[in-house]
Amino acid sequence: MEERMKNFVIIVAGGSGSRMGTEIPKQFLELHRKPVLMHTIQIFHDFDPESKIILVLPKDQHQFWKELCLKHSFSLSHQVVFGGKTRFHSVQNGLSQIENKGIVFIHDGVRPLVSKETLERCLETAKKSGNAIPVLPVNESLLRQEGNLNISVDRSQYFSVQTPQTFRSEQILDAFKQEFDTSFTDDASVAEKAGFSIQMVEGNRENIKITTPTDLIIAQALLQSNSL
Amino acid sequence: MEERMKNFVIIVAGGSGSRMGTEIPKQFLELHRKPVLMHTIQIFHDFDPESKIILVLPKDQHQFWKELCLKHSFSLSHQVVFGGKTRFHSVQNGLSQIENKGIVFIHDGVRPLVSKETLERCLETAKKSGNAIPVLPVNESLLRQEGNLNISVDRSQYFSVQTPQTFRSEQILDAFKQEFDTSFTDDASVAEKAGFSIQMVEGNRENIKITTPTDLIIAQALLQSNSL
Repeated sequence: MEERMKNFVIIVAGGSGSRMGTEIPKQFLELHRKPVLMHTIQIFHDFDPESKIILVLPKDQHQFWKELCLKHSFSLSHQVVFGGKTRFHSVQNGLSQIENKGIVFIHDGVRPLVSKETLERCLETAKKSGNAIPVLPVNESLLRQEGNLNISVDRSQYFSVQTPQTFRSEQILDAFKQEFDTSFTDDASVAEKAGFSIQMVEGNRENIKITTPTDLIIAQALLQSNSL
Repeated sequence: MEERMKNFVIIVAGGSGSRMGTEIPKQFLELHRKPVLMHTIQIFHDFDPESKIILVLPKDQHQFWKELCLKHSFSLSHQVVFGGKTRFHSVQNGLSQIENKGIVFIHDGVRPLVSKETLERCLETAKKSGNAIPVLPVNESLLRQEGNLNISVDRSQYFSVQTPQTFRSEQILDAFKQEFDTSFTDDASVAEKAGFSIQMVEGNRENIKITTPTDLIIAQALLQSNSL
């Protein structure tokens, strides 16, 4: 009998709020009367209530988060670990909590609009191929800066990367044994550097990263609509 | 005495509706009870009521547009010309209506949320440097497909291109004398191929291109908010 593989979810919430022009870090901003981060955790819980959810949060935000959970009577089970000095180190801290084999979703805390379909595609492809990175075609032209020159690039070869970046636990644990490198822009780039080939799956357009006040307005509208 | 330079606006509306899953081409979809295209024309009119506005529209949509204008009592002055078989040919048709020197804004009909500040930046830089392309930093990781491989790229060198792509009339008329080339993805790429160096200016995050039902929901929310 095949044992059911466990799902692990590492939610990385490193925002300090500076980019939003707000005092409150963006993962705590309210969306439909609930902090962004609670929406994000809820989605993964609903997708698989048996998941182990690991929230990576800067140390100085742990107390605030605890109080927010009380205030909102938020009781979904999750474990909170300390953030590191870069995203790489934060994810590494999250990975330290993975005790068996399974599938690991690594997700931005400020992406509360990932769809169930995207999660299913990530899960299926990661099981089969070792990893799955949700992407969308780039839908605007791109310019690349090369010294003083701005060069048009053929956008049809480019894909915009979302999260959850999803991996078999053996693969991602192996990849994160590497020394930190400044070329690590996301988890896929870590796996790539370790020699794993990267698999793309389709993301969903609504799965935006909330980093500006405009994004919050957009997220509010998308939550309100039936588009998910 | 310096003569005031005339502003020309070429609004390209080539959509046929297929990508939206709708029968009605996306430039005609209603946003706050008014077709998208009317919002777009209104913005350029408000920015400079003396602008000459040239709307490039597929031939088989001219009658429908006329009826829409009547229905909505839309009376802002603009000239309608035929679309061509590619964007390049459509813009060429628009350019044929430019009879004096000035600044030429070339804008997507389905971008009704460009801000006044973006237009000002485009105008000032194009006057000074010959052209101005509104861009934003790419805010998600990028993957580039190379054969069977998906490669992480350093997004900090990349910029996402919006419109209006803005040019001194001499420069853009000169550039569009070239033979059509499939590498022409937008107007900047045409100018670049003609040897002009491309100037970037800051766009605005709200200035999205409406190409999917999700985009329409987003545009609605942004129009409603005070974010512009």
